[in-house]
Amino acid sequence: MADAWKEAMELAEKTARRAGEVVCAALQVERSVMTKSCSVDLVTQTDQQVEQLIIQSVRDKFPMHRFIGEESVAAGEPCVLSDEPTWIIDPIDGTTNFVHAFPFVAISIGFSVNKQMEFGVVFSCLEDKMYTARRGGGAFCNGERLQVSSQEDIQQAMVCTEFGSSRDPEVVEKIFCSLRAVLSIPTHGVRGAGTAAINMCLVASGCVEAYYEIGIHVWDIAAGALLVTEAGGVLMDVQGGPVDLMSRRVLAANSPALAERLLQEIHSFCPIRDDAAPSL
Amino acid sequence: MADAWKEAMELAEKTARRAGEVVCAALQVERSVMTKSCSVDLVTQTDQQVEQLIIQSVRDKFPMHRFIGEESVAAGEPCVLSDEPTWIIDPIDGTTNFVHAFPFVAISIGFSVNKQMEFGVVFSCLEDKMYTARRGGGAFCNGERLQVSSQEDIQQAMVCTEFGSSRDPEVVEKIFCSLRAVLSIPTHGVRGAGTAAINMCLVASGCVEAYYEIGIHVWDIAAGALLVTEAGGVLMDVQGGPVDLMSRRVLAANSPALAERLLQEIHSFCPIRDDAAPSL
Repeated sequence: MADAWKEAMELAEKTARRAGEVVCAALQVERSVMTKSCSVDLVTQTDQQVEQLIIQSVRDKFPMHRFIGEESVAAGEPCVLSDEPTWIIDPIDGTTNFVHAFPFVAISIGFSVNKQMEFGVVFSCLEDKMYTARRGGGAFCNGERLQVSSQEDIQQAMVCTEFGSSRDPEVVEKIFCSLRAVLSIPTHGVRGAGTAAINMCLVASGCVEAYYEIGIHVWDIAAGALLVTEAGGVLMDVQGGPVDLMSRRVLAANSPALAERLLQEIHSFCPIRDDAAPSL
Repeated sequence: MADAWKEAMELAEKTARRAGEVVCAALQVERSVMTKSCSVDLVTQTDQQVEQLIIQSVRDKFPMHRFIGEESVAAGEPCVLSDEPTWIIDPIDGTTNFVHAFPFVAISIGFSVNKQMEFGVVFSCLEDKMYTARRGGGAFCNGERLQVSSQEDIQQAMVCTEFGSSRDPEVVEKIFCSLRAVLSIPTHGVRGAGTAAINMCLVASGCVEAYYEIGIHVWDIAAGALLVTEAGGVLMDVQGGPVDLMSRRVLAANSPALAERLLQEIHSFCPIRDDAAPSL
């Protein structure tokens, strides 16, 4: 059977690579930084430029498709996942890394139809690693098939998470409680790439056994989610049960057993959903 | 004037690259892990093999030189920095990363004469980045000159640190208090590569403004220390004053002002020194 979305996926990969070139070029010049929700939530002109580049490339070929893009939503566009073919875009996942030229910066493009992810593309442009996954077709990095780690002993596990961009003391308290509990199981260690998309690719690659975070957005994880499941991993909500991409909470792991063990250590909370009605 | 240690530095670079090949090759096969001091302090056959490779290469050319190597010290050799020419070696900095194929793994070779660092070589082998510094000769990555960040506003800074391998609750408490205080200044973020040597190279490269850690060893930081100062940065003890490479404490920063600001947030403690007399 021909793959209905083959052409779209090829476009996603090609566009992610072009976007990566723009990002790498921008790293050679002075970066002008703006802040969004707070002093540590950053955005640059490059974020906006790259999102427009991706949206325009897709519109040229698929004029009827919809978009959920980090910068478009920030500018007031709705963040609703319908049954229509929808491109879910983070033009620069890891903007703080980008501002500092820290080596993990990703372009993340997920594509959903009937609210189901059909493909995901994450381009880690400073590492030159192109991660791709097609529903039912496996996950790959630069063409090499990915497989999650087979380690099921939590004490031998490495876990990724992030401090996040909120500095609200209550949120920071929860994040630190979880982090300390996970570290003290004990696990081998905790790391954080500074981008959700790459953290999920590290789970898919078997470098870390799990990744969890509360506070991320749908555009951070849509593509990475398919990478994880197509590499043999699992996705859950941080309180157990199925993941909800709009809930701003995710736990990705190599196995249900390891995911369930981690759940016990995570102090969860509920950020405002990505698809919440905008406050008037 | 001819550089007295030119030949030694060339040997260090060549040997680091050979060692990196061994490390990368080992990542392709099953990694046999054994336990050193506790379950999170991993050592592999590869660490020992790489340290022997480096020591043997140096002995062939410089039979009178001394060595301080992580694995030799673990095996009972003394850890004393004399005035003699001394090679300070970490065969795999980031062993936990290595075990997980997490992308930051370094071979670190420092060289001191009269207790002064003459050159430092850090090879980040999975990234293929060769960092080198010669006292008075600048710091480089793959031949490109490095310069620390010019950012002196702590609120615009990114900082590296690590959780460390101790799971002693008192130590973990101090580490978490410092981390939370640094994050809440607020800074742009906190990262950790999982290797002290690469964290110091990230300071030298200007990707992060500072790195601090308590609990590291002389072989983790000897080479990186010269990278930082030769790129224009500063080194201090975490309570201020000059760094003592044997004290297992370091603060590296782009500027004295930023270092002094960070000092205020670090809850310090005193691990057993690297050059302490062995307990009977």
